Amino acid sequence: MSDPAWADAVGFVAGTLTTLAFLPQVLKTWRTRSARDLSLAMLLSFCAGVVLWLVYGVMIGQWPIILPNIVTLVLAGSILVFKLRESPPDGGDRESRRSP
Amino acid sequence: MSDPAWADAVGFVAGTLTTLAFLPQVLKTWRTRSARDLSLAMLLSFCAGVVLWLVYGVMIGQWPIILPNIVTLVLAGSILVFKLRESPPDGGDRESRRSP
Repeated sequence: MSDPAWADAVGFVAGTLTTLAFLPQVLKTWRTRSARDLSLAMLLSFCAGVVLWLVYGVMIGQWPIILPNIVTLVLAGSILVFKLRESPPDGGDRESRRSP
Repeated sequence: MSDPAWADAVGFVAGTLTTLAFLPQVLKTWRTRSARDLSLAMLLSFCAGVVLWLVYGVMIGQWPIILPNIVTLVLAGSILVFKLRESPPDGGDRESRRSP
């Protein structure tokens, strides 16, 4: 259970999955032109957290933390930009009922 | 820039933000009963990655990795369950046009 090479491999796959997870979301949002079901608070909190992970990586000089978080920030940030442009000027989410 | 205590603090806030980011998404999805704009591939990839982060944390015996990923898995996993129940039996996403 504590073989460092196995742990490194599991960590690498884990990081790849959580980093690239936002790619299909970017593609879906781009294709459907709708981000209404996405929570603005989720995107803001997540992007702010990723920025701080970047800062943390720079502070401790760890590229394995810096690089994936740059990729995540580009992906999650592009969804946030789409969401902000979609939201009405008053800043609230559209909660109007939709036809099924 | 390399004060370990500051780096730890930044890392802690970063982890809190990215871990709790899914809470407003869970609340929004629960409230609107709609996860159509959420990408199934994103949720699957993200949850699989979080499971592997958990395994990684157990392998290297680090509770600061294990605990936040348990919280993230519960939150992101509940959105995944909602999405899977919403999706039609053929497994595809509903892409039908909606009225604005």
